Amino acid sequence: MTLQDTIVALATPSGTGAIAVIRVSGPEAITVVSGVFESVSGKDIIRQRSHTIHLGTITDDGKIYDQVLLSLFKGPHSYTGENTVEISCHGSGYIQQQIIQLLLRKGCRMADAGEFTLRAFLNGKLDLSQAEAVADLIASDNEASHQVAMQQMRGGFSNEIAKLREELLNFASLIELELDFSEEDVEFADRSQFHELLNRIEFVLKRLIDSFAVGNVIKNGIPVAIAGEPNVGKSTLLNTLLNEERAIVSDIAGTTRDTIEDELVIGGIAFRFIDTAGIRETKDVVESIGIKKTFEKIEKAQVVIYMIPRLTEGENPQLIMQEINKIRNQYPQKMFLTIANKADLYSESEKAQLTSLIPDVLFISARENKGIDGLREKLLSFVSTGALRNNETIITNTRHYNSLLKALEEVQKVQFGLNSGLSADLMAIDIRQALYYFGEITGQVSNDELLGNIFLKFCIGK
Amino acid sequence: MTLQDTIVALATPSGTGAIAVIRVSGPEAITVVSGVFESVSGKDIIRQRSHTIHLGTITDDGKIYDQVLLSLFKGPHSYTGENTVEISCHGSGYIQQQIIQLLLRKGCRMADAGEFTLRAFLNGKLDLSQAEAVADLIASDNEASHQVAMQQMRGGFSNEIAKLREELLNFASLIELELDFSEEDVEFADRSQFHELLNRIEFVLKRLIDSFAVGNVIKNGIPVAIAGEPNVGKSTLLNTLLNEERAIVSDIAGTTRDTIEDELVIGGIAFRFIDTAGIRETKDVVESIGIKKTFEKIEKAQVVIYMIPRLTEGENPQLIMQEINKIRNQYPQKMFLTIANKADLYSESEKAQLTSLIPDVLFISARENKGIDGLREKLLSFVSTGALRNNETIITNTRHYNSLLKALEEVQKVQFGLNSGLSADLMAIDIRQALYYFGEITGQVSNDELLGNIFLKFCIGK
Repeated sequence: MTLQDTIVALATPSGTGAIAVIRVSGPEAITVVSGVFESVSGKDIIRQRSHTIHLGTITDDGKIYDQVLLSLFKGPHSYTGENTVEISCHGSGYIQQQIIQLLLRKGCRMADAGEFTLRAFLNGKLDLSQAEAVADLIASDNEASHQVAMQQMRGGFSNEIAKLREELLNFASLIELELDFSEEDVEFADRSQFHELLNRIEFVLKRLIDSFAVGNVIKNGIPVAIAGEPNVGKSTLLNTLLNEERAIVSDIAGTTRDTIEDELVIGGIAFRFIDTAGIRETKDVVESIGIKKTFEKIEKAQVVIYMIPRLTEGENPQLIMQEINKIRNQYPQKMFLTIANKADLYSESEKAQLTSLIPDVLFISARENKGIDGLREKLLSFVSTGALRNNETIITNTRHYNSLLKALEEVQKVQFGLNSGLSADLMAIDIRQALYYFGEITGQVSNDELLGNIFLKFCIGK
Repeated sequence: MTLQDTIVALATPSGTGAIAVIRVSGPEAITVVSGVFESVSGKDIIRQRSHTIHLGTITDDGKIYDQVLLSLFKGPHSYTGENTVEISCHGSGYIQQQIIQLLLRKGCRMADAGEFTLRAFLNGKLDLSQAEAVADLIASDNEASHQVAMQQMRGGFSNEIAKLREELLNFASLIELELDFSEEDVEFADRSQFHELLNRIEFVLKRLIDSFAVGNVIKNGIPVAIAGEPNVGKSTLLNTLLNEERAIVSDIAGTTRDTIEDELVIGGIAFRFIDTAGIRETKDVVESIGIKKTFEKIEKAQVVIYMIPRLTEGENPQLIMQEINKIRNQYPQKMFLTIANKADLYSESEKAQLTSLIPDVLFISARENKGIDGLREKLLSFVSTGALRNNETIITNTRHYNSLLKALEEVQKVQFGLNSGLSADLMAIDIRQALYYFGEITGQVSNDELLGNIFLKFCIGK
């Protein structure tokens, strides 16, 4: 992991496209590329200014590799903070490979996963949470996760943390100064101001920690279990929801994304649907494997949709209620939604009867695409997206969440110490510890193992 | 197909990578993008110079879409010859889609397949054969096809055609001038010089037309049928050949290309292997379906490799000769190669005996990787790569081939006319016709249907 190396990697997705971009970064990036580049106008790229583009060929030993555009970035005015060249070549896998092999022969080495962003971090272009947001941004596939990653990448989160850390650091210095004058019994740090600061930090930390619940939902989607008998219309409902989504996506040729059959985005939030077998058909064998599996799946969901079948004449509606209650009683904390599909088959009196039994029942017709908007709104209402709408900072990263929890613990120790008149030297230790956890988030405190773990998850070329 | 539109498309492969490039081209390209771009330094991109790069955000209506780099190209100094902006954004499919949708809302339209290159042609940045070479270059997956496409894209082929066309045009003008003075019986066009020119044109045309055989091989690979009994080692041989190839490819992470199981590149030339059932096992049922299928496959091959089994004691080697001759007699024009696998099992006297029967038999051991280099050389020797090595112009495009054939026909008519003292007015018609076919190649003569057919084969974004 030495910054002295000049690294190279393909920055665009592999495969054939119109163009591909090969990224070269490091002290020798411009020199190495200039050795294999012939500008059409005969210019020497070493003498060109940063942020300029040059047309020419990649040539070595009489062989022309490709006609390319070079983008020049001179450190520190680049993504990595180092000299960087981006080679925009024709999008043939063969050409990409040949050019990368040529640059390897000329002294570059293959970049590790995330190494460009790691360098940006090590060179002070990004803090650690911003660097992590780059990977989140690339992985984002819906409005909400995109918005949160963007805010984090642009420093929203780390600014908030850094500001609190600085204020705390200020007090830490004053308190440590008191230690130097301990015989004189002076108080440089205003205790009531310090008290107020600790309360403010506690408040912010708690809000950030709480936001992780929403953040997690945004990042990973909300698992929704759909239960109900076969043929009640589960897959028709899913298709109706998914098809609209697909129609939007397929509007733009060339930007197809991998279809995740059972995930759909409503109001910018991803919902992951888990199909389950119904409960009813196994009601006589309470301990059956089927019912156990269904409950295991429901266990993993945050929301349960139960689709009820239309009663045949003379059937007792209480049977349905038994089913519903079986689930509701076992998982009282899960959000529950009862749906009556094929609503057009219900008479008004039947609707009234069902509504009297299940007041929040939702009538839809999946096939006719009726009542689907209502279902969407209902699903969305289960998510507290207030923080998202208000543009508040939201935590999505487990690492940040853990550091914040530890920081909160230390801050609360300091609060306790302050309230119970703990001596400054002991308080200073807890404050330092709190500062350590703040620093872990932004990377002011880091080590090779931590960095290795973080950047391992990146793709090569980023 | 109006040039007044400003078009947009993803230029990099779809899917997730570190970065993606969205290309915008047309009269309003810079204006449209400037409306949704906020430079970090507050610069107005409309006032910036061509070939410069600008960091900022794509923003609209208070929403930040992404932090991006813009590359500015001012017409005519761009690929298309028009104002062009390349937006280098984070490689999330979601972000790509959002930015493209935003630009569509701002008045761009989705580019058709190959439309950027079509515009480059219509704006005189490339001739038609060069434009076609762009698609070939992107599709190239080996040394030879890459070299030929590169030469064509850089104008090697069209320069040769254009030069001949110009000389011919010169004579055409002189001969047509004679028509204006027909009463005076003057000869502006020197008949012996004209004769010499026609011979030269005929020579070049014939060479180009002949090169199509090699060009076709380069573009499509050489089909090789492998025949022989089961268990004789056909798939071991194929794996041995393929594995080495794969090892080279997998050296570079991030540049994986789709593996074509039965294609391999030797000395820059692609060989496509066609596995066939043997002939021997069906020798008693001459008309069997199996033998028919094998012969159908051999029919499609240019090279036939026949792998012979090791004879068990007392077996008559003439049986093998019968097999071999069955194929050789049916396809005397196909290149034929006999291989004895598991060479380590042969004693020297057995080898001598076999060689006396089949003088050009090749002893290899696929499992031990012995004799494989010799096999490669042998396969390569079947391809006349002289033209390739000598950097001569090679035709790979059927459209060019057909135009060249027609041009040759017209040139030969002119030659005949000249030799038989045909009147200038009749000769002028044939010359015009020859000129027409020359122009078809470079696009000096074109129509919407021709262009449509050519650019349909391009990917979107190119």
